[in-house]
Amino acid sequence: MSLTGDSCLYNFIVMELFGYIKPPEHLDATFAALADPTRRAILARLASGDASVTQLAEPFAMSQPAISKHLKVLERAGLISRSREAQRRPRRLEAAPLKDVADWLENYRRFWTESFDRLDDYLQKLQTREKQHGRTERRK
Amino acid sequence: MSLTGDSCLYNFIVMELFGYIKPPEHLDATFAALADPTRRAILARLASGDASVTQLAEPFAMSQPAISKHLKVLERAGLISRSREAQRRPRRLEAAPLKDVADWLENYRRFWTESFDRLDDYLQKLQTREKQHGRTERRK
Repeated sequence: MSLTGDSCLYNFIVMELFGYIKPPEHLDATFAALADPTRRAILARLASGDASVTQLAEPFAMSQPAISKHLKVLERAGLISRSREAQRRPRRLEAAPLKDVADWLENYRRFWTESFDRLDDYLQKLQTREKQHGRTERRK
Repeated sequence: MSLTGDSCLYNFIVMELFGYIKPPEHLDATFAALADPTRRAILARLASGDASVTQLAEPFAMSQPAISKHLKVLERAGLISRSREAQRRPRRLEAAPLKDVADWLENYRRFWTESFDRLDDYLQKLQTREKQHGRTERRK
């Protein structure tokens, strides 16, 4: 089975397989990288397309070295990558670590869903009570 | 509209409403709190039921003050709360900040879904190629 010519997809498969054997500490780096508003803003910018360091620095009142530091944290967490395109080397969003966070969160989803169900029940109870109260008021 | 007697649900509604006006830096505290394997293990333990500090410290080779430090970080991030039950004051999981993380992640879901679609396309292409190759081999 030849994978030559599909090197991008081959890399992708290796990265995905690597994802399955990723140690749990990988989540540490992901969460730490996401714990900063500038880094989250950088990811939001990259969600609309690849961008160079200069382009990424533009919306922030920050020096390029300060932005580069944030980019390094994101890169180490596997949240962004650099394309091979010479000179500019634009950064690209890598979603695999975000998927890991989403998978981890799934264990807790039932907690907030249950909460909303409880709120819903309560509001319905309130509404029924209000209606009954209204009827009693009219009868008087 | 009287809320007496439903104080638990009243608190819940206030907390939920507070959630809507929560500043974005709230996510900083949540992500920072989640960037530690012990703190994530504490949340996993609390997902199966409320627990006292002693109970929470048990599975870890850690002093109670060390665990208390982790609990403080989780509490400040709103990820756990203390029940009013005297003495033991068991900790409880609070899912609202996790829901905020899930909401934030939704902006990126399309990226990993697209990736998996791409992988799926590729594997189908490979399978077709393998079948064609098999047929050519048999003809020889």
